[in-house]
Amino acid sequence: MTKELFSLAAGGALLNEESLLEGFSAPCRDAHRQILEGARDNASGFGWYGLPDMDLQELRRCAETFASVGTVVQIGIGGSALGSLMLEKALAFDSSSSRPDFLVVDNVDPRDLFQLGQTLDPSSSLLVVISKSGGTAETMANFLWIFSLFEKKLGREEALKRTVVLTDPSSGILRDFVNETGCASLPVPSSVGGRFSVLSPVGLFGAALLGISAEDLLEGAKAMRFRIEASSTVAENPAWLWAVLAHLHEKEGRNISVLMPYADGLEDFAEWFAQLWGESLGKGGLGTTPVRALGAIDQHSQVQLYAEGPDDKLYTLMAVREHPQDYAIPAPPGISLEALGYLEGHSFGEMLYAEAQATASALVQKGRPLFWLELPKLDAYRLGGLIFFFEYATALTGLLMGINPFDQPGVEQGKILTYSLMGRKGYEEHAQAVEQQQKIMQKLAIKA
Amino acid sequence: MTKELFSLAAGGALLNEESLLEGFSAPCRDAHRQILEGARDNASGFGWYGLPDMDLQELRRCAETFASVGTVVQIGIGGSALGSLMLEKALAFDSSSSRPDFLVVDNVDPRDLFQLGQTLDPSSSLLVVISKSGGTAETMANFLWIFSLFEKKLGREEALKRTVVLTDPSSGILRDFVNETGCASLPVPSSVGGRFSVLSPVGLFGAALLGISAEDLLEGAKAMRFRIEASSTVAENPAWLWAVLAHLHEKEGRNISVLMPYADGLEDFAEWFAQLWGESLGKGGLGTTPVRALGAIDQHSQVQLYAEGPDDKLYTLMAVREHPQDYAIPAPPGISLEALGYLEGHSFGEMLYAEAQATASALVQKGRPLFWLELPKLDAYRLGGLIFFFEYATALTGLLMGINPFDQPGVEQGKILTYSLMGRKGYEEHAQAVEQQQKIMQKLAIKA
Repeated sequence: MTKELFSLAAGGALLNEESLLEGFSAPCRDAHRQILEGARDNASGFGWYGLPDMDLQELRRCAETFASVGTVVQIGIGGSALGSLMLEKALAFDSSSSRPDFLVVDNVDPRDLFQLGQTLDPSSSLLVVISKSGGTAETMANFLWIFSLFEKKLGREEALKRTVVLTDPSSGILRDFVNETGCASLPVPSSVGGRFSVLSPVGLFGAALLGISAEDLLEGAKAMRFRIEASSTVAENPAWLWAVLAHLHEKEGRNISVLMPYADGLEDFAEWFAQLWGESLGKGGLGTTPVRALGAIDQHSQVQLYAEGPDDKLYTLMAVREHPQDYAIPAPPGISLEALGYLEGHSFGEMLYAEAQATASALVQKGRPLFWLELPKLDAYRLGGLIFFFEYATALTGLLMGINPFDQPGVEQGKILTYSLMGRKGYEEHAQAVEQQQKIMQKLAIKA
Repeated sequence: MTKELFSLAAGGALLNEESLLEGFSAPCRDAHRQILEGARDNASGFGWYGLPDMDLQELRRCAETFASVGTVVQIGIGGSALGSLMLEKALAFDSSSSRPDFLVVDNVDPRDLFQLGQTLDPSSSLLVVISKSGGTAETMANFLWIFSLFEKKLGREEALKRTVVLTDPSSGILRDFVNETGCASLPVPSSVGGRFSVLSPVGLFGAALLGISAEDLLEGAKAMRFRIEASSTVAENPAWLWAVLAHLHEKEGRNISVLMPYADGLEDFAEWFAQLWGESLGKGGLGTTPVRALGAIDQHSQVQLYAEGPDDKLYTLMAVREHPQDYAIPAPPGISLEALGYLEGHSFGEMLYAEAQATASALVQKGRPLFWLELPKLDAYRLGGLIFFFEYATALTGLLMGINPFDQPGVEQGKILTYSLMGRKGYEEHAQAVEQQQKIMQKLAIKA
């Protein structure tokens, strides 16, 4: 028995051209076949497709070992942080007493690190460090510093007992560190890229520590994969419809893709999607820019621009139908507020849903293209399905665009320049170029 | 004696055309004169220009009355929330014992409201509600509900003693409520729009409760205003340079404006700017889309797209030079990590600054246009200057574009539709349109 994951409807521009959409059924079938073959051959980048089948035993055992820790400090950046933050925000928001505090250390800002140093008690904490390569400068700097806090307080041996390393199963300096010290570790599958890794131990280990059901997440992802494999026309396949319209709207000149959930729990989902989408498709002069919004808040910030600014965006609004808790709005407490009587008795969930409908209608009335994605409720099963849906849709869009959605050549230059400025050997000449550039800009700078 | 506020340099495209830029000195002078005249006449929307001169006595007295509360619950949305969140994140991040918890309730999500209901203790809390008109549906729904929590626990009289209303000084239902009940209130100046209101009581009252110096914020704003008034050419006026290039890049087809601070403390500044920019300029088919990013985190999420995606963005990178606390990165704890030796001894602040430089250089090398905005440090004085700078630059850009930067006609339609769906009298016919639209989309929906 499968539970409904979500429903998806498209509104606005391009939808009257049915034959245009159906013309993409064949390219989608080709792209889908590439994904299946890549997954079967365990080709680099394609590993996410098989993650719903993952055996969770090792992960579960490791999480049980640390079930009693008070604080989890997880170090990682980009794909090693955004998925965890997304899962926590969606599914572990309340401060249940049995749940550890969960701190994700991604940036290298000294201010927040200072706060951490002031408040962290290593003797009741667990240190989780995530880097597939072991070479990510920010992650490793944070690890050196936070590990030193553990070491100072507990000694090296005990610090290592409170450290779990998530890295490549066979190579890289963090794997060497595991081998040298014998500390606990979990594998980051080699064929899975960072931004596609949330349903691997990268996202699921933290989830398990937080009491989120990794099983339900994978079940939902598996159900979505099954649903995607079940249809082979654009009209029937939700992921194909989404990807084809995303692709066509980019070709029409709409270079911005707005993801706007109407649910606080999905705020970080839009952030996670922004990496998935931007880093997968932003190459070769192509790729639309992901913009995350949050309903109803951004009605009071961005909807003016959405409604009356340029027609340069494709919108995906996400609404949630049921809420486990809800409240009726009470009566106004004074005659001066009588004009608010119309709110009385409506629930907040109803209001939030009405606002999503209102915004969708207002945009469609203006001819702006949008998707209406509706979840029966927000739980681990639906979230797993949603994750898989957008991973698949992103990969498919990239293949329709004729690019490789699994590499990220453009981040190398910045990394090289950072290495050079930090004095890493072999990168000296790059530092000179940066410094020269900075000198020119400093000279031109206007002081205020 | 004035302290340096920041320095601003531009890099990348369009800069070699000096005469093009200087051709805008005259239009800037005109637009500047409009701003001065609007401020002098207290014209609608222009009030922000005079806010640095505000008398803080009433606000300070009101804040002192509530100096001992444990929790401040501030209800407001859009311009009545984003400024407060920005100030708190930048200047009140640590959990000092003398500082109240500060909860901003903006959305109407039942999940987060449930959490609030579970944990809030009205007997040690202060309720602040902000709506200039008193008609904002989300704010008023939240107010009705949270006020009822106070009332149930404390009785109406005591609940009113713990309520401060920020609203129009003379009209609207919230002003009527103040007159009816005698609860405390502060004025939201009539000529100041929500997104320009952070340096009015809207932002400064919460700031004062948090122990942030409203005086320093206004001092910095005043110094920036003085600096702006001191130069009358594009080459010498930082705000004119920023606005003219923003305007020209939009005309060149760059429809996205990225604000990317390299400081956790400025993360919500970019969010605040997104409303200011989007709602002021997104009209008549014009306006660039604000995108907020955060360095160094978004190097691992968005920089691939920035470097190799379409050349459709103007970037503003913000770096902070000095940090009150900083740490040196320690030596690696094992021979397996020897390759990380290059990090040892560098500080985190140095690393963050180097990453900002590296990203700026990588983008400029690709010919992408950017601003490099450098703050000596992040404090109330500099933040006040920064706020005034972007308010002024936004207004100026709008005037250069030939639009009214102070209205927001496009949010009305969504409001009307929400009213109609909530059953407000006189809006019935709109509800039918929305429901019909939804029915069509539901019929077309693909189930997963």
